[in-house]
Amino acid sequence: MSSALSPQLDELVEALRRLPGVGAKTGQRMALHLLQRDRDGARRLAAALTRAADTVGECPECGLLTEQPRCGICASAERERSLLCLVESTADVAALEQATDYRGRYFVLGGHLSPLDGIGPEELGLDRLERRLDSGEISEIILATNPTVEGEATAHYVSEMAAARGVRTTRIAHGVPMGGALEQVDQGTLSHAFMGRRDYEG
Amino acid sequence: MSSALSPQLDELVEALRRLPGVGAKTGQRMALHLLQRDRDGARRLAAALTRAADTVGECPECGLLTEQPRCGICASAERERSLLCLVESTADVAALEQATDYRGRYFVLGGHLSPLDGIGPEELGLDRLERRLDSGEISEIILATNPTVEGEATAHYVSEMAAARGVRTTRIAHGVPMGGALEQVDQGTLSHAFMGRRDYEG
Ligand SMILES: [Zn+2]
Ligand SMILES: [Zn+2]
Repeated sequence: MSSALSPQLDELVEALRRLPGVGAKTGQRMALHLLQRDRDGARRLAAALTRAADTVGECPECGLLTEQPRCGICASAERERSLLCLVESTADVAALEQATDYRGRYFVLGGHLSPLDGIGPEELGLDRLERRLDSGEISEIILATNPTVEGEATAHYVSEMAAARGVRTTRIAHGVPMGGALEQVDQGTLSHAFMGRRDYEG
Repeated sequence: MSSALSPQLDELVEALRRLPGVGAKTGQRMALHLLQRDRDGARRLAAALTRAADTVGECPECGLLTEQPRCGICASAERERSLLCLVESTADVAALEQATDYRGRYFVLGGHLSPLDGIGPEELGLDRLERRLDSGEISEIILATNPTVEGEATAHYVSEMAAARGVRTTRIAHGVPMGGALEQVDQGTLSHAFMGRRDYEG
């Protein structure tokens, strides 16, 4: 969009380009759609963004996004404290909650080990996980990191941490395509992979 | 995203789905990206949306989006009043401004004739266009509607309106692929098509 036309429109297009997968053309199409056909949608989106940015934080126990002091899963008395499912992101938790009837809790890493990018155990909060393993309340860790090189390396690292403390580790079954991302798998495959989890041999 | 996780996050995903081309998965990916990695981007987008929704309107002369009383093109003394380029949308104006050195003005329809959808001449503001033709200030109308069935029908309708008043009509040259949308054509093709415009025979 030539800035001769409307600086406010240009600014909106630039702001939309901060969204993942949105380039110049798509940003322009979105901006024009909102301003020409859905101004109510534009205002609603602005309000939702502001509210979420102001109120949503990370659960101090598991790292899930929540607007409460603790997330609904950690706060629930009905979720077993002894079962912990390790995932890379909040999106993975959403996918697992929809696909399975898992009744334990989660530990959200917010990524995977990636030494070249400076992401080590501490950046992922694995020191916090270590303290929880030390406390003795965990009897099984389900390793549900993505089946990528980095996800496998992260699973391996945690499995050794658990083994040193006599905690059982399981890995969700293959069935999730290698190299794929957990959140993009269909519910049936994911449910199957979760049910078919096995002891992890690292 | 299961609403058990975070109602605010759910609301943000729903609001993002009002954007064209954004479904549940993409909306979730965008929301998580903003909240986990780019909160500053979320606030900036909210501000840009509010500001644009509050201040951007349509130019009363040509229909272009603008935050001024009249758009920069209509307000410019350097753009010829006698040349009028008819387009379907603001995005088409942006594309033409980038690709050509056109020095006339525009008339933005905001769509095309589509009787089945209840979009007739009045819905497109063609009565306003008729009054401008009656005023005698227009010497040429460049028909730059999309080369689709509806775009051609709209061009045909306007060409008859112009012919009845002795105003010359030209159509941008083919080269824009048939069935395609003007705004998706590369600059070179669009520039070529614009330069090679011919008298319109309806
Ligand atoms: Zn939690
Ligand atoms: Zn104007």
